[in-house]
Amino acid sequence: MNLALLFDEDFVAPNRVVLRGRRLEHMRSVLGATQGDQLPVGRVNGLMGWGEVVTLTASEAELLVTLDQPPPSPLPFTLILAMPRPKMFRRVLQTSATLGVKDIWLINSYKVEKSFWQTPWLSDDNLRENLTLGLEQAKDTAMPKVHIRKLFKPFVEDELPALLQGKVALVAHPGTATPCPTHLNKPTALCIGPEGGFTPYEVGKLEEAGCQSVHLGPRILRVETAVPVLVSRLFDACL
Amino acid sequence: MNLALLFDEDFVAPNRVVLRGRRLEHMRSVLGATQGDQLPVGRVNGLMGWGEVVTLTASEAELLVTLDQPPPSPLPFTLILAMPRPKMFRRVLQTSATLGVKDIWLINSYKVEKSFWQTPWLSDDNLRENLTLGLEQAKDTAMPKVHIRKLFKPFVEDELPALLQGKVALVAHPGTATPCPTHLNKPTALCIGPEGGFTPYEVGKLEEAGCQSVHLGPRILRVETAVPVLVSRLFDACL
Repeated sequence: MNLALLFDEDFVAPNRVVLRGRRLEHMRSVLGATQGDQLPVGRVNGLMGWGEVVTLTASEAELLVTLDQPPPSPLPFTLILAMPRPKMFRRVLQTSATLGVKDIWLINSYKVEKSFWQTPWLSDDNLRENLTLGLEQAKDTAMPKVHIRKLFKPFVEDELPALLQGKVALVAHPGTATPCPTHLNKPTALCIGPEGGFTPYEVGKLEEAGCQSVHLGPRILRVETAVPVLVSRLFDACL
Repeated sequence: MNLALLFDEDFVAPNRVVLRGRRLEHMRSVLGATQGDQLPVGRVNGLMGWGEVVTLTASEAELLVTLDQPPPSPLPFTLILAMPRPKMFRRVLQTSATLGVKDIWLINSYKVEKSFWQTPWLSDDNLRENLTLGLEQAKDTAMPKVHIRKLFKPFVEDELPALLQGKVALVAHPGTATPCPTHLNKPTALCIGPEGGFTPYEVGKLEEAGCQSVHLGPRILRVETAVPVLVSRLFDACL
């Protein structure tokens, strides 16, 4: 936690917050904070700055906050991801938030196991918690939006073409002929398949919607590795 | 496991292997392999190819192997890493192996907790196991070398200057003025600090040894995210 992310419900006055739970625990046991300390904070979808510890007890901390710095720029990036298996999903969420991805679409695919959609990590609270951990790692405040689409065909036919308007549109597809472009640094949408990849039918549908198939070289990466590799490759000037 | 990595002790004849344990379990329960199937295999530090399942029982599988393809190119990269906390270390090892990193130096730093060096993940068997998992993910056979240096000063003063000969030498240091270069695609050594970063003294010693301090932008990345981001940024033509 390189920054404590503050939510509306933390504010007891326009410049005062009361923290409990995980953030309090971190302040006490990891940071060893004491009264008078200045800690980095940021308001969700708002400015960043400092919180001065006014009171600190075992059950709560009160901070006087000054928020005057903008968060880092968001990436001009739409990540469209076949729903990963739960333990990977949680890390991919955190990593995506840390990297500055703000628009995440979770879609179905033939090789997504039905059970993946049952994971508690997809609840609103758990999504927010994991995205918060990613933002707090990065020192960012802009909460990513996560869209859940459990049916492949309606998403690809009815929503995807509009979503791709004005963007470079790619699908990562091992074995295809074209390498993934580098340092694009402009609005891009990228589809990443499940373990084992999209089926040829699915790649065909994504191409029909406007995506170009690209590969990342001979190595097969797990999705949690592919996301930072692709973000870094596409947006070297934006990180 | 996109490829089964074969070790000398698996060979019962020049073109026959017997597999048990994890690889057998994977063949049976994940791949659903049966007699006659052709599975991707590779010999550690050797060629890749196919293994035909000759016999398959609950306790062992015998494969007839044909090895005739070279593994993907290694990255011209030396990764010098302050020892991460154990649960991260394991993922960093696997990810580094998957990305094609072949030379990994684990070093000490003021902010490396002493307990990190006690982790069982540093045993020869566990290092090999996790690097194997990373290679099997990538479809690669060239086993990375891991060097353990528990004393910072002797490493930096006595070994590092020679290690950096003929390489671009960098230390990732948030807050410094120079951004990390992109698409170098030539021999590079990169030092990554612990959570909280190298101390100013340590950065000074690394710079004395020939490293240039570079930053990765305003976001603070966990080491498991920084490694793929940096590899992708430095070696876009090599992946």
